[in-house]
Amino acid sequence: MKISRRGTEMPASPIRRLVPYAETAKKEGVHVYHLNIGQPDIHTPDKMMDGYKNTDIKVLAYGHSGGLWEYREKLAEYYNSFDINVSKEEILVTSGGSEAIIFAMMSTMDDGDEIIIPEPFYTNYNGFARECGVKIVPVTSKIEDNFKLPAISKFEAKITDKTKAILVCNPNNPTGYVYSREELETIRDIAVKHNLWVLSDEVYREFVYDGTEHISVLNIAGMEDRAIILDSISKRYSACGARVGMLVTKNKDILDAALRLGQARLCPATLDQIAGMYALETPKSYMDEVYNEYRARRDVVFEELDKMPEVIAHKPNGAFYAVIKLPVEDANDFSIWLLESFRHNNETIMLAPADGFYASPELGKDEVRLAFVLNVEDMKKSMNILKEALTQYPNKK
Amino acid sequence: MKISRRGTEMPASPIRRLVPYAETAKKEGVHVYHLNIGQPDIHTPDKMMDGYKNTDIKVLAYGHSGGLWEYREKLAEYYNSFDINVSKEEILVTSGGSEAIIFAMMSTMDDGDEIIIPEPFYTNYNGFARECGVKIVPVTSKIEDNFKLPAISKFEAKITDKTKAILVCNPNNPTGYVYSREELETIRDIAVKHNLWVLSDEVYREFVYDGTEHISVLNIAGMEDRAIILDSISKRYSACGARVGMLVTKNKDILDAALRLGQARLCPATLDQIAGMYALETPKSYMDEVYNEYRARRDVVFEELDKMPEVIAHKPNGAFYAVIKLPVEDANDFSIWLLESFRHNNETIMLAPADGFYASPELGKDEVRLAFVLNVEDMKKSMNILKEALTQYPNKK
Repeated sequence: MKISRRGTEMPASPIRRLVPYAETAKKEGVHVYHLNIGQPDIHTPDKMMDGYKNTDIKVLAYGHSGGLWEYREKLAEYYNSFDINVSKEEILVTSGGSEAIIFAMMSTMDDGDEIIIPEPFYTNYNGFARECGVKIVPVTSKIEDNFKLPAISKFEAKITDKTKAILVCNPNNPTGYVYSREELETIRDIAVKHNLWVLSDEVYREFVYDGTEHISVLNIAGMEDRAIILDSISKRYSACGARVGMLVTKNKDILDAALRLGQARLCPATLDQIAGMYALETPKSYMDEVYNEYRARRDVVFEELDKMPEVIAHKPNGAFYAVIKLPVEDANDFSIWLLESFRHNNETIMLAPADGFYASPELGKDEVRLAFVLNVEDMKKSMNILKEALTQYPNKK
Repeated sequence: MKISRRGTEMPASPIRRLVPYAETAKKEGVHVYHLNIGQPDIHTPDKMMDGYKNTDIKVLAYGHSGGLWEYREKLAEYYNSFDINVSKEEILVTSGGSEAIIFAMMSTMDDGDEIIIPEPFYTNYNGFARECGVKIVPVTSKIEDNFKLPAISKFEAKITDKTKAILVCNPNNPTGYVYSREELETIRDIAVKHNLWVLSDEVYREFVYDGTEHISVLNIAGMEDRAIILDSISKRYSACGARVGMLVTKNKDILDAALRLGQARLCPATLDQIAGMYALETPKSYMDEVYNEYRARRDVVFEELDKMPEVIAHKPNGAFYAVIKLPVEDANDFSIWLLESFRHNNETIMLAPADGFYASPELGKDEVRLAFVLNVEDMKKSMNILKEALTQYPNKK
């Protein structure tokens, strides 16, 4: 029996492809620090977990296909507090941010259409694009430029009659870069000129540091009819396993199409939405603590990276990731070597080779993504391991 | 801004299209009995709700993309108890049965491919097919034949070089029909002869009455490599809002492709899976009570329908639905009339016009689907309302 071309071409997760090497190391009793995956170690707020624990639901029934109205009403307040002027009718709750991305791609593009995305980008966009039959056309952000938005000319060189949308992730996963108002206005100008949709993945909205302001696509005038925010509560409340996301837009046709996509699958999970509603009541002290913790982790990582002059790295202003350039021929080989052969006090680290975050072949071969998902002490230890490893690795550039 | 063709073509739910009429009636103080939607009124087992209430999870983290192994292990035992011989590796947990259908369609078919489905069928297949770019080709089951499987020749007449799969829903929604071993062997023979996949939606597996045996596609020899079971806990435990489904197959390539589809969206929701795991411990007394309740509802509905000689109806052996033929020109007009104009002691009923369950235009125009989702007393009252309505309706055939 032959499966579909689509099924054959669906990419495996490049973030997880080194898992077997890590498992072997662990079986040998080696401690592996996981810097490869965006699974925070932070506790989910008790308040949110109360949403599950306090339930007195008797019939766990289908909810509204667009999400529980009571939740959407509170989400509107949440967005309003960031000057994102939307009503509850302009928010659809989805099964994770993943489904928001799929619904946005399906509503804006048909089989064979193209979407421009600055690379490196969140690798799962590749999977969603393949599911939707959409082609990702990358424009390259460079580590030397601190991964800022590529020039307008780079975008325009890629626009064809198949181009229907631009997708930005802001703050960016994997680079941690936060786009400025000027950069988002540039995107608006390109989008207006070429009549494109703008999809904006703003999952890390609340993680911006050093006085940086987070600007949403819906904070930019003149984009109201073409902007779609893709969102999730996963990272904000360390609740990746809840699978609660949001699609937010003021475009009525997209809301209508996304709702019909939602009707086919009936509804998002009820109790996870209720927990999401509870999460909105999380005390500010929790949010502050988590924010400070991520900033401290970033700071210690870059304090240590500063001691490795061969490593090219810029301290990012957002999210909890960084892409860094290593003095190695091949970051994938180096990552495997770390898991297979290198031990420092019987410990090692697991990195995510950055080539999986690029659509252009040959790019990112000497880069890795770090995720700041371990505590300050462990992040510091991990950077020490990296430093030691680089002194011993045989295949350096 | 123009949305995609796919977004434009996504169907709205035909089960819900009369909702505005029902809302108006309710505003007038009229009681509306909802026979139109498969949302059971049955209580979710306490045991399952304990899965949420008893949680002591500190970090609600991503789980395995294919579902929690502990849950899959218990699901394998569940299937084994129905002589469905699968291991935990042959089960993927999905976000509702809906996602299992999407993953199966995407893994077996590409844009433009065709799937043959006996009609009338569960309307949301239309939406999933549109999402996947797949064309549904119907073969018609007839009410006069009690909706049994159409003849082999009817299938073969529809097979083209684009045909990749057959989908059956067994027990059937909307007809309640339960396919016999012989019928499933017929499907196997067609599938083997023409090298097709067989997708089998077995959500209502446990609701078969009057000594009927439920046969799974995986109970049929010679289909192991081409059969995919699509499943859900929604109806079994009256837990539609949990969004926990399963894709079960022994085909390694499908398991692999579906897992990669699952990796893109990271994982199914963690606590809903844990609740699903708890649900497997539901006492037999609950399952028996629910089973007896649905049977009693069906029996009272057909007792009452027997008093309406103009109505053509066959008592189904499974699920909790029936498609019946009314002596009216247009069941859609009749359903609207019921909500807008007909009152019996200030009460009326909401039906689901069956044309939405057919892919062939003009079929099912005088048929409706009844869902047995109200208690025996209310089902009886509803049938009385139907009887009265038919005596007064002006546009009868």
